[in-house]
Amino acid sequence: MVIVMAPGASDEETDAVVSIVAKAGGSAFISRGVSRTIVGLVGDIDRFQTLGLDGKPGVAEVLRVSVPYKLVSRENHPTRSVIRVGGVPIGPGTMTLIAGPCAVETPQQTLAAARMAQRAGAALLRGGAYKPRTSPYAFQGLGEDGLRILADVREAVGMPVVTEVVDAHDVPLVSRYADMLQVGTRNMQNFALLQAVGGCGKPVLLKRGLNATIEEWLMAAEYVAQRGNLDIVLCERGIRTFDTTTRNTLDISAVPVAQGLTHLPVIIDPSHSGGRRELVLPLSRAAMAVGADGLIIDVHPAPEEALCDGPQALVADDLAELAHAVRAFPPMIGRQLAAAASLVA
Amino acid sequence: MVIVMAPGASDEETDAVVSIVAKAGGSAFISRGVSRTIVGLVGDIDRFQTLGLDGKPGVAEVLRVSVPYKLVSRENHPTRSVIRVGGVPIGPGTMTLIAGPCAVETPQQTLAAARMAQRAGAALLRGGAYKPRTSPYAFQGLGEDGLRILADVREAVGMPVVTEVVDAHDVPLVSRYADMLQVGTRNMQNFALLQAVGGCGKPVLLKRGLNATIEEWLMAAEYVAQRGNLDIVLCERGIRTFDTTTRNTLDISAVPVAQGLTHLPVIIDPSHSGGRRELVLPLSRAAMAVGADGLIIDVHPAPEEALCDGPQALVADDLAELAHAVRAFPPMIGRQLAAAASLVA
Amino acid sequence: MVIVMAPGASDEETDAVVSIVAKAGGSAFISRGVSRTIVGLVGDIDRFQTLGLDGKPGVAEVLRVSVPYKLVSRENHPTRSVIRVGGVPIGPGTMTLIAGPCAVETPQQTLAAARMAQRAGAALLRGGAYKPRTSPYAFQGLGEDGLRILADVREAVGMPVVTEVVDAHDVPLVSRYADMLQVGTRNMQNFALLQAVGGCGKPVLLKRGLNATIEEWLMAAEYVAQRGNLDIVLCERGIRTFDTTTRNTLDISAVPVAQGLTHLPVIIDPSHSGGRRELVLPLSRAAMAVGADGLIIDVHPAPEEALCDGPQALVADDLAELAHAVRAFPPMIGRQLAAAASLVA
Amino acid sequence: MVIVMAPGASDEETDAVVSIVAKAGGSAFISRGVSRTIVGLVGDIDRFQTLGLDGKPGVAEVLRVSVPYKLVSRENHPTRSVIRVGGVPIGPGTMTLIAGPCAVETPQQTLAAARMAQRAGAALLRGGAYKPRTSPYAFQGLGEDGLRILADVREAVGMPVVTEVVDAHDVPLVSRYADMLQVGTRNMQNFALLQAVGGCGKPVLLKRGLNATIEEWLMAAEYVAQRGNLDIVLCERGIRTFDTTTRNTLDISAVPVAQGLTHLPVIIDPSHSGGRRELVLPLSRAAMAVGADGLIIDVHPAPEEALCDGPQALVADDLAELAHAVRAFPPMIGRQLAAAASLVA
Repeated sequence: MVIVMAPGASDEETDAVVSIVAKAGGSAFISRGVSRTIVGLVGDIDRFQTLGLDGKPGVAEVLRVSVPYKLVSRENHPTRSVIRVGGVPIGPGTMTLIAGPCAVETPQQTLAAARMAQRAGAALLRGGAYKPRTSPYAFQGLGEDGLRILADVREAVGMPVVTEVVDAHDVPLVSRYADMLQVGTRNMQNFALLQAVGGCGKPVLLKRGLNATIEEWLMAAEYVAQRGNLDIVLCERGIRTFDTTTRNTLDISAVPVAQGLTHLPVIIDPSHSGGRRELVLPLSRAAMAVGADGLIIDVHPAPEEALCDGPQALVADDLAELAHAVRAFPPMIGRQLAAAASLVA
Repeated sequence: MVIVMAPGASDEETDAVVSIVAKAGGSAFISRGVSRTIVGLVGDIDRFQTLGLDGKPGVAEVLRVSVPYKLVSRENHPTRSVIRVGGVPIGPGTMTLIAGPCAVETPQQTLAAARMAQRAGAALLRGGAYKPRTSPYAFQGLGEDGLRILADVREAVGMPVVTEVVDAHDVPLVSRYADMLQVGTRNMQNFALLQAVGGCGKPVLLKRGLNATIEEWLMAAEYVAQRGNLDIVLCERGIRTFDTTTRNTLDISAVPVAQGLTHLPVIIDPSHSGGRRELVLPLSRAAMAVGADGLIIDVHPAPEEALCDGPQALVADDLAELAHAVRAFPPMIGRQLAAAASLVA
Repeated sequence: MVIVMAPGASDEETDAVVSIVAKAGGSAFISRGVSRTIVGLVGDIDRFQTLGLDGKPGVAEVLRVSVPYKLVSRENHPTRSVIRVGGVPIGPGTMTLIAGPCAVETPQQTLAAARMAQRAGAALLRGGAYKPRTSPYAFQGLGEDGLRILADVREAVGMPVVTEVVDAHDVPLVSRYADMLQVGTRNMQNFALLQAVGGCGKPVLLKRGLNATIEEWLMAAEYVAQRGNLDIVLCERGIRTFDTTTRNTLDISAVPVAQGLTHLPVIIDPSHSGGRRELVLPLSRAAMAVGADGLIIDVHPAPEEALCDGPQALVADDLAELAHAVRAFPPMIGRQLAAAASLVA
Repeated sequence: MVIVMAPGASDEETDAVVSIVAKAGGSAFISRGVSRTIVGLVGDIDRFQTLGLDGKPGVAEVLRVSVPYKLVSRENHPTRSVIRVGGVPIGPGTMTLIAGPCAVETPQQTLAAARMAQRAGAALLRGGAYKPRTSPYAFQGLGEDGLRILADVREAVGMPVVTEVVDAHDVPLVSRYADMLQVGTRNMQNFALLQAVGGCGKPVLLKRGLNATIEEWLMAAEYVAQRGNLDIVLCERGIRTFDTTTRNTLDISAVPVAQGLTHLPVIIDPSHSGGRRELVLPLSRAAMAVGADGLIIDVHPAPEEALCDGPQALVADDLAELAHAVRAFPPMIGRQLAAAASLVA
């Protein structure tokens, strides 16, 4: 059982709830988030239900949920959520294109990629300043210099920025620059990081782990939610299977399945799943047709010089086709392309 | 190196080729198919190229192909093939809907399912008379009685029939009734069966094995082709991965990847990959958007009474939506729904 | 529910059972095997239990088993079985080494490999006359010529022979030459083949499919058993996973898990799972330590010239170490190396 | 190319190396570890080899390694390493048993488990104070209180302690209490954590990720090594595959494969791979027979009350059999059980 305290609830009100539960033989643990406090109860649920907790001062909601992911489940929240990133919506009704370079390399490259993204219809800019790499000898990203470049390019083009954070203790720094924080596939079960972004006050893009079941993915989102942050977007980006023809195997069924289980938006990354430029467009079309709430795509002005994942970045020639597809497909299933933030504001 | 003999080539002409190769220190093996004879050469390929084989009587083509699947590769056959089943095309330009019951149970159920399929836009009727089942105690299909029902329903509704064959020695029998023979996922590497359907003179629907790489799938098609039958349609139907949320994981990327490697058409089975009714429509839309050459879908008039795979069969209420989707999506990528055979003829 | 008829039961006695079940609203299907007849019942099990079937003439056993694999389950057969192949035991108490060439190529090579196997402690000779190969252009085995070579070598060295059959209709032929028939990994769900070997009157070595769950493997064994043949040995030979460092991933836990579920013996093939010579000895030691009832190992007098799977064949230098291990390890867990057949007789 | 500086090398000497490389058009990055400084070079390796770097002051070794894991590879370090944990060796020649409770719950439970471990032959005590759990509502460990309990029990029983760290910023704290730091399977690619333990001055136990290839596992070890810490022990603990009969699939081949690629010791965790008590002993025997340098096993005085992973913990009755096996099997392959630390000191 999970108790969600009202936004303005006092510490005393929360403590009173904990005390009632303790007297009933249960234990309660408190997660104070930026916007709300969550109290998780462990013990005799049937007994707790007799305690009248939903009438106590400061209590907003008492959730009894049968699935292990309480706050992100659709059980108590049948309406699918819309998450806003710098004013840009991600959720039902829209299809939001996020695009940009895999890694921020230079101001020029980042700006060029952002303009490419914008021409294709992107409303949000992606770009990595911290790159988790399999090898310690590979390019690890520009760090804070990269964040500054992203912030400058946001000014120039008017697109809110999504960027990855790889260390819990970088969360405050990255939050100062970014509009949305990404937790990457290798960190999906880095619980310290999940809890840190849960308290950052910014929306979170949570990529599915390479070998995570859908339930584990939702449990990872629950770690973020439990710290009071429900502005979470899930991203399917390919799973690891026996077949190595593609970099990873895009689990396209994960979109309707996850959308049935959680109220959070679910988007697809066709670039990292396919790992090859020529697959990005077909997989993007499939993602829109299956009902994904958005797409996140690598673009690069000169992929052959890219410091990271060049072979999967779209180039200028591909953009016209992408621009066409992101306008043509969403209406087929009752959605429209999310407008760029500059237009929104 | 592979030598394709001309349709009317005599045995003497084939033997002459074998003899030339043998004198050059190589070995040749002959596959006599229904419509053509294939001679595979093993040995010093560079030497064989000096023998002037392509000028010998009866030789239609000499193929030197770098990939291990010679006849089905796009290397020597860049144009994608159109396969015709009882007059209905499967290939680029069209999107062909195949639908019907998982298993043939009764004449009434089969006819009702066929009419449902036809209303949804299906041009071909599927239905199983021989069912490969994990348990020897499960319903194994009606056998020849089922084939007769299918033939009767074909008469009644004017749809050519696709049905599975599970034993090499049933191939002649099944060929008498069916317009297209299906090789199921468990039999993808049943080489005796592949060779038998290679000689049957009817088009073949080859499902991908649950754990087959794309190369192994194409090699299985090569077994069929090598017996002289190039009327093969490949069908992606989900692979087995660590995630058991869905029955299998639809590998949607396999469509563009395989279409890049082979000239054969590639279709998708959204029913068996998802294993759940509510996933069939989203996955069908994704399949059409990614560029699949067709769909094969389970429908049943009363799934709760189905003897096989009821939970994934579409019911009457779903059909209007499917009927809309199969007309709306193909034009988005320059295709049109393949017309029913009765209209074709 | 499954009814096992006594060895000498008449057709009339079997028909009487079927009739009783039919009157009670159930349906029964009969599998007539070489040594016994099995009647499977489908319908209201609780009702069937009131019919007194176990007292009817000709009925040996009435099995009500909760798992889907009835005849091979340990539920009604807690004692683990010993299967005899030409007099050589495979089962608890012993550790049986089966060795020989992957493929039979020539009489000389087969004889040399058999002598190598025997020196290492092998009691049974393996060797393939029919080779299921991914490519139709690869060496497919010598067929009946290979079977004759195996039979001659058996005469010469006194080792019973295990060999693969790939087509249901070759079963009578292969049964004339072999002491045990192997069903390979790609054919684990070739149900026609399973039923054919179920009626062959010879013991069967059933390899686990590359992606088969343990339950599916036992269900495949049930197909054989249902035709009256319970002389089945299961063989774990590696499964397909994301990791391609080894050819396949040996699932060593499958041995104790399967031995807990079925009374049939379970052996390990370290050659095909590892795919590399240097892994065969460590994996063989692990297999014996985990409690496998046997090992099946590739040996070849000149692996660099082998027509099939040379890189994994043990050579003469490895044999002394293998010979030592197969004598030293089994006693550690209360077993002894199964003696060669010539000594048994 | 990687340059390992001598233990006492000055910053000026390191800077001089960097400067030489920069003049030759390359770039160098410095990792200052506790015991040594590593300089990684990126650029024209052939050119670097002409610079006489191995003769420069302060340079201990210049490694040119073809594989991507430079410092942990066997290429330049053919002798397998022995890592010492509080005086207890892990490496070739010995088989080291690590045992203890999955989670530290109370002083009594931890002491009881430690005594069980010791009786079974364990030289090192395992126990978790920080537990990474799939659910945020599950028991997360006692934190520093747990570390204090472990330290007290170490005093009482004389066994050095291995414990997990889940957050990079807890590394200094955990290092004060533990003799060896464990990085868990979910954190294998938490690069911030890997780098932190690389600088902690204590040996590291690095578990393989659930879906990590062997190369990725060695690259993770390289992250630790690059920070100057080569006291790393690798632990295979089961991978995720399609088969869910066991909790995970123990990849036993990973031991000889990894031992061939790296000089670091490789141990096996049979408790977490099998996930069931009755598999622990057979898998332990297999692990020793395949040549693992050690075992890490869960024991618990009362598993039915365990807060974490009770079903896989060995109980008192199993210990005699384990105690026998860890003494009997290692000598079979030329090893002996590593003696407890109290005897070592």
